[in-house]
Amino acid sequence: MKANPHYLDLRGSYLFSTIGKKVAAYQKENPDKTIIRLGIGDVTQPLTPTIIEALHMATDEMAHAETFRGYAPDLGYDFLRNAIAENDYMKRGCDIAPDEIFVSDGAKSDSGNIQEIFAEDSVIAVADPVYPVYVDTNIMSGRCGSFDESKEQWSKVIYMPCTAENGFSPQVPSEDASGKTPDLIYLCSPNNPTGSALTREQLQKFVDYANAHHSVIIYDAAYEAYISEPDIPHSIYECKGARTCAIELHSFSKNAGFTGVRLGYTVVPYDLVDENGVQMRTLWARRHGTKFNGAPYIQQRAGEAVYSPEGQKEVQGLVSYYMENAKMILEGLRDAGFTVSGGINAPYIWLKTPDGMTSWEFFDYLLDKANVVGTPGSGFGPSGEGYFRLTAFGSHANTKAAIERIKGL
Amino acid sequence: MKANPHYLDLRGSYLFSTIGKKVAAYQKENPDKTIIRLGIGDVTQPLTPTIIEALHMATDEMAHAETFRGYAPDLGYDFLRNAIAENDYMKRGCDIAPDEIFVSDGAKSDSGNIQEIFAEDSVIAVADPVYPVYVDTNIMSGRCGSFDESKEQWSKVIYMPCTAENGFSPQVPSEDASGKTPDLIYLCSPNNPTGSALTREQLQKFVDYANAHHSVIIYDAAYEAYISEPDIPHSIYECKGARTCAIELHSFSKNAGFTGVRLGYTVVPYDLVDENGVQMRTLWARRHGTKFNGAPYIQQRAGEAVYSPEGQKEVQGLVSYYMENAKMILEGLRDAGFTVSGGINAPYIWLKTPDGMTSWEFFDYLLDKANVVGTPGSGFGPSGEGYFRLTAFGSHANTKAAIERIKGL
Repeated sequence: MKANPHYLDLRGSYLFSTIGKKVAAYQKENPDKTIIRLGIGDVTQPLTPTIIEALHMATDEMAHAETFRGYAPDLGYDFLRNAIAENDYMKRGCDIAPDEIFVSDGAKSDSGNIQEIFAEDSVIAVADPVYPVYVDTNIMSGRCGSFDESKEQWSKVIYMPCTAENGFSPQVPSEDASGKTPDLIYLCSPNNPTGSALTREQLQKFVDYANAHHSVIIYDAAYEAYISEPDIPHSIYECKGARTCAIELHSFSKNAGFTGVRLGYTVVPYDLVDENGVQMRTLWARRHGTKFNGAPYIQQRAGEAVYSPEGQKEVQGLVSYYMENAKMILEGLRDAGFTVSGGINAPYIWLKTPDGMTSWEFFDYLLDKANVVGTPGSGFGPSGEGYFRLTAFGSHANTKAAIERIKGL
Repeated sequence: MKANPHYLDLRGSYLFSTIGKKVAAYQKENPDKTIIRLGIGDVTQPLTPTIIEALHMATDEMAHAETFRGYAPDLGYDFLRNAIAENDYMKRGCDIAPDEIFVSDGAKSDSGNIQEIFAEDSVIAVADPVYPVYVDTNIMSGRCGSFDESKEQWSKVIYMPCTAENGFSPQVPSEDASGKTPDLIYLCSPNNPTGSALTREQLQKFVDYANAHHSVIIYDAAYEAYISEPDIPHSIYECKGARTCAIELHSFSKNAGFTGVRLGYTVVPYDLVDENGVQMRTLWARRHGTKFNGAPYIQQRAGEAVYSPEGQKEVQGLVSYYMENAKMILEGLRDAGFTVSGGINAPYIWLKTPDGMTSWEFFDYLLDKANVVGTPGSGFGPSGEGYFRLTAFGSHANTKAAIERIKGL
């Protein structure tokens, strides 16, 4: 019996596990210090009343034979898929039908599993820096080639650098640079980790490129609720031609605070076919039916409640709460002389480390001197070196305290 | 862009989807008929009071900032892992530590995903008939070779036939027959679909074989709660040497009725290493950390409640309820002249189709004449041809009515 050799190619452990261990070790050595965590993108504010009520009501239904629900439909309950289609698509003029929507236990699972329905020799393109799950799950499937220690890059991966020069947003892959054409293009907008967001015009370029080269865009819209500017699209299906080239991933974690509730969905349009005419939607449906048993009923009722008028108001309240933090961090760090970006259409602030420190040096420095935890930019890819991510997901009090501490350094 | 070609090797759609579609079509054509479903292994009785209370309490915790929980630990909360280790292992004299236990959203996900941590050229052995997920997920990973239409078997899969001669229980693969040695041996005991169960002595033979041949046993213990006879082991870790060769999958669906709640766990002992000394536990932990974001907090509290004294009593009540159905089906069918087995240590009854009908012929016959839905044995593998599965998961009233209808045929 032999282990999957591709798993052994993975570098270190998952970024946030590494950070967790470092912080735990520091806390153990310094039990008196109060650490403020602005690292992982986990929410801190409680679920709102409408969601809580939906969870209680659905739980009560499970207590009686007449209303008890066993296995959910593999792809999700109609009540939720209809609510998603209407609110997230129809209202925005996007042509997405309920049966193109697949309800899951969260966008992380989907973003990790989606690569499975594509051929093993698919070439992937990712932003650099990037949310680690996209690359790690393709390493696990043997798609990334070998790791070049000097470049800190995988030999078969196409990187789209996000740098100060391009406003920390990925650009359509240049064919001259690598000679390779990507089969799968992972895009996250608003972007994690840089907090930038693609404009409608920029995203349309990706859609046009993908259609011209028969690539698929895996569009991670987890932070869509944080968009505040009118020229930023909320869905890739706002772009012309996206139905033939795009899969879109959604989370309820960042808008409604479901990180511990677990609910998400993925859109795979009927029009998305591979080079042999295979409908990718069928494959994703087959994966759901075979390796998953549906999201829990009570969670799906909670998801439905997000779309009620009260739910929408409450979600807007949560988003505003976190965006006040974003503003606090942006302005506070700017006052303290840091170079910062993001935080306008996303709950992430991307800052340049001071005094030429590496990202991990700054991580250790901030943990030790200010007892504040952030995420080293280099953990997201080589172009993240010299940068650092802070999240707006803390409480007001903690965020304020963290910024005061950083200002006092 | 190209689809995963192995997905295209899959035969038809997932068995229970096919049945669902057939039943829906029949119901549409016959809107006046009352169909009784004894097909899919889905429970019908509501969640018990202790579970409902735990769900409500955990939901209330999510409503307040002080008790709100975001991302769960990847591998599960300690409160649940400790309860599992104590109740399902320590109390049975099995040496399994909490950090060898991985909490998930259900045994179906785990049984589908577990193959991923093994090399692509691993040879699998399965019982025939078998729960379709084991084979289908290995087809999707390209491990099964080509399908031989005449044998109805995959060229690279080792089959362990379960026939009337061997009491419908799998036997250790014979090396003479195929010349192949399995890397992964899927065992489900008590068995789905045949309802048989391996004795401690029979299972020890598998463990000894696996250790001698460096195979891994993927032991699906989803129906463990239904064991009524003393010589049937509740865990594979009751066998000597299982820590070096076995992974065990558990479900909360069949004991506590969590089919719509979604909670399960998998045990991967530290001692399980591949031929190069790679600890398989590390790979499974890495998969959990990268492609999964933890089971929901409220579900994990419900799981913990299953192990409370009241929870245990209630679960025992549910199991007894369904086993009364099993007895009713077994005796009723026997009275009606059917040849039946199972139903003693499992909620499944395995019956021989009458008059030489094929399994699907009997499915259609039963649906049409008695408006009763069962599962064709051939849907589980070629040795299931001529057999049919009925589940004990209905209500007493429906089960009784179904048996009366079958008797009246």
